[in-house]
Amino acid sequence: MTDQLTDRDYQALAGFRRALRQFLRFSEQAARHAGVTPAQHQLLLAVRGHPGEGPPSTSEVADALQLRLHSAVELVGRADANGLLERHTDPDDHRRTLLTLTAEGQRCLAGLSAEHRRELARFRVEMQAVLDALD
Amino acid sequence: MTDQLTDRDYQALAGFRRALRQFLRFSEQAARHAGVTPAQHQLLLAVRGHPGEGPPSTSEVADALQLRLHSAVELVGRADANGLLERHTDPDDHRRTLLTLTAEGQRCLAGLSAEHRRELARFRVEMQAVLDALD
Repeated sequence: MTDQLTDRDYQALAGFRRALRQFLRFSEQAARHAGVTPAQHQLLLAVRGHPGEGPPSTSEVADALQLRLHSAVELVGRADANGLLERHTDPDDHRRTLLTLTAEGQRCLAGLSAEHRRELARFRVEMQAVLDALD
Repeated sequence: MTDQLTDRDYQALAGFRRALRQFLRFSEQAARHAGVTPAQHQLLLAVRGHPGEGPPSTSEVADALQLRLHSAVELVGRADANGLLERHTDPDDHRRTLLTLTAEGQRCLAGLSAEHRRELARFRVEMQAVLDALD
């Protein structure tokens, strides 16, 4: 693999970005159709899909979402006001706020996640085909 | 594959989006470091990586970039003013504008594409690992 790129490499890179834009467009439309913003959808997913033990803190979620803490705090506040999640003070560290989904947030995320899993199966095949051309 | 998702499925979906955000962040920073906007970088790639024969038209590029035609026309105008690409009237259809990269646009895209190819090799392994967990 040299740094010299062929026509086929450029077509593969362009095809990958095109597939990525289609996936992201699908995702944004699915979120809006479910009645949440794309940012709120990503917040619910980051809370529910946090890899550690127990619920994540606001700053762990900010890190996963690549947001500054004050932006994450605002996003969490709006999602709380919309009944999608709840904030709890960490009993072991009163400076930490832990996040959990409400029943409504769980229902919303479950529907979106099932749709995304199907779309990802499609995206993955398309992406693999274009990336296989990149050698 | 039922619609019921497990903890592992949610972690895989969250891990995929996290890897995607990191890739997109890398890409934006690489473009800015090369002296172009992320949108200009995608424009150069869509022109150079157009799959058809001969140079693409502005409307073909708008379609690839999922932009409205007037937004694509503005983006093309700024890239032309910055010396990255050139507009030519299609000799076979005078209503069509065809796009080609300048030597400067080619040099800029070649450097960015080599960097992206390396980053994509990394992203692909990470993405495959998280998507393998989604069954």
